Amino acid sequence: MPTPARTPVTVVGLGSMGAALASAYVAAGHPTTVWNRSPEKAAPLVEQGATHAVDIREAIAASPLTLACLTTFDATLAALEPATDGLAGRDLVTLNSGNPAGARALAAWATGHGARFLGGAIKNVPTAVGEPDTLLYYGGDHAVFTAHEATLRVLGGDTRFLGTEPDLAALYEQAVGGTLLPALLGFFQGAALVTQRGLDASTLVPYTQKWLEMVNSVLPTFAAEIDRGDYSAPLSSVGIFHAGIPYDEELGTGNGLDVRWHAPMHDLLRRAMAEGRGDQSIASLVELLRNPA
Amino acid sequence: MPTPARTPVTVVGLGSMGAALASAYVAAGHPTTVWNRSPEKAAPLVEQGATHAVDIREAIAASPLTLACLTTFDATLAALEPATDGLAGRDLVTLNSGNPAGARALAAWATGHGARFLGGAIKNVPTAVGEPDTLLYYGGDHAVFTAHEATLRVLGGDTRFLGTEPDLAALYEQAVGGTLLPALLGFFQGAALVTQRGLDASTLVPYTQKWLEMVNSVLPTFAAEIDRGDYSAPLSSVGIFHAGIPYDEELGTGNGLDVRWHAPMHDLLRRAMAEGRGDQSIASLVELLRNPA
Ligand SMILES: NC(=O)c1ccc[n+]([C@@H]2O[C@H](COP(=O)([O-])OP(=O)(O)OC[C@H]3O[C@@H](n4cnc5c(N)ncnc54)[C@H](OP(=O)(O)O)[C@@H]3O)[C@@H](O)[C@H]2O)c1
Ligand SMILES: NC(=O)c1ccc[n+]([C@@H]2O[C@H](COP(=O)([O-])OP(=O)(O)OC[C@H]3O[C@@H](n4cnc5c(N)ncnc54)[C@H](OP(=O)(O)O)[C@@H]3O)[C@@H](O)[C@H]2O)c1
Repeated sequence: MPTPARTPVTVVGLGSMGAALASAYVAAGHPTTVWNRSPEKAAPLVEQGATHAVDIREAIAASPLTLACLTTFDATLAALEPATDGLAGRDLVTLNSGNPAGARALAAWATGHGARFLGGAIKNVPTAVGEPDTLLYYGGDHAVFTAHEATLRVLGGDTRFLGTEPDLAALYEQAVGGTLLPALLGFFQGAALVTQRGLDASTLVPYTQKWLEMVNSVLPTFAAEIDRGDYSAPLSSVGIFHAGIPYDEELGTGNGLDVRWHAPMHDLLRRAMAEGRGDQSIASLVELLRNPA
Repeated sequence: MPTPARTPVTVVGLGSMGAALASAYVAAGHPTTVWNRSPEKAAPLVEQGATHAVDIREAIAASPLTLACLTTFDATLAALEPATDGLAGRDLVTLNSGNPAGARALAAWATGHGARFLGGAIKNVPTAVGEPDTLLYYGGDHAVFTAHEATLRVLGGDTRFLGTEPDLAALYEQAVGGTLLPALLGFFQGAALVTQRGLDASTLVPYTQKWLEMVNSVLPTFAAEIDRGDYSAPLSSVGIFHAGIPYDEELGTGNGLDVRWHAPMHDLLRRAMAEGRGDQSIASLVELLRNPA
């Protein structure tokens, strides 16, 4: 019994991530065409069984579905532009990082030339491509997602459709990524504190990990409060966080650390208190972030 | 065969957490004496099998080991002070929140009156008391920890000794807790962004959870860099974060959110670049936090 034919796929961009995507398609039995600005990066994939297209027009022509994974939306546009005439009737999926405006611009260009567009993001490292819990999410043309869902799922078992706007993956990237630098600074500050005592920063890791797991466990509650706009039965109140300000400041006064990065966070707490939110959930800070004073 | 005698335990403070501690000891077969400022809170524990001491001197006299769980170190001192004369030869363990200075002051008072002191913290909710993965950590007199380790483990399977300074649990509390407000603000900002598009904040939760799990997975690497003081082979560089500043700022300019809380974090990145750390690990920010400019 022959296996059902796999959709031919073109992968544009063979950096660390693009090469991993192309490998996954070859391994899954998809006829795979690859293109890269620096053509020498195609060689290992050709060895695995991919076809190398030196011309981007050939690459787009080779498959109904093209996945692009370059550094930025601008780079993607620059790479694809010579193939503009061949876009009609093709499905284009992007997996690079970038802002929502970049995703909208590329989508407008692609659909303006008769392609269907899906803007995606892969939330993991190249070595995790194809794993059952690797998360990818997409926004844009729903018909592209449904037509190619099985093909997209080759890249990760946790493959989701966010909605029909082409910049939603980029928007969620921005929304999710905003926790990174603040959370890391919190950890680095803790590391500065314990290392001052001659203790290793590594001793802090398991406790911070448990703490962030705890934070994860309360996010559904905070999100539900935000979605209802009801902050009246708090798990944790603005007042409790406000009362903690002096403890936070001791990290500076008592330990000589640079705590200036706390100041505007404390200002938000003080503004929330002044608005009478002391007994409301800490999630009510979203109302202040929405409305700059 | 009689079971080996369990150490008699006194629990001082029967708020949500203290009551849970006392219940756990009764259930584990320890002769348990309880004391609370408002005596009526002892009734449910007496029903479970605890002995109620109305006088704090009686409470301290009843057991070799006393666990105190009041709101603060000041409250603990106020509650215990009438029993000062009975402290000699007793072991005192605290489980309240508070700053390292408060822990040191209480430890000095207790040891000055002949008690042995261990300052602890419980990193979970009252309903998790006694669970195998409930984390408690302690700093102070190592002999107290070893003498009562099995008794302390009744409160949670993940029971650890941090070191011999009596304020270490409070110090780790401060070090760990510093990630909370920044991480939550990052999430609230993301929630503001997606809800502006008519999407529920709840849709962001699974992605933020995966993201914080990813953050957890890289903490050991950052901690090792900090402990070695070697930032030269970065997983993620200062330069990469610095390049992300304009994307971060778009949340303000493009979406009308209040992003002023980013400003000092961006200043840290700019100072790190100015110090020539662009190719160093983002963990090198710890050096700036240690040395206010
Ligand atoms: N690596 C990861 O862990 C990871 C994880 C999640 C998301 N991502 C995202 O995936 C995307 C690609 O990442 P990567 O790690 O694969 O990057 P990379 O290894 O640096 O590769 C970059 C790719 O972009 C190409 N490129 C850049 N500018 C170009 C231009 N103007 N014209 C044509 N091609 C151009 C490069 O071609 P040359 O070979 O000719 O230079 C190369 O194929 C990025 O947006 C990244 O944020 C990466
Ligand atoms: N609950 C949690 O989820 C949790 C988790 C981890 C750590 N903790 C920490 O555990 C400690 C206790 O928390 P909790 O939730 O049990 O608090 P709680 O329910 O508010 O109980 C507070 C206790 O402190 C007593 N108290 C306060 N001031 C006093 C004073 N001046 N003299 C004598 N007794 C006084 C209260 O006595 P009265 O009954 O007479 O008012 C009561 O027993 C806090 O430091 C908290 O941060 C709590």
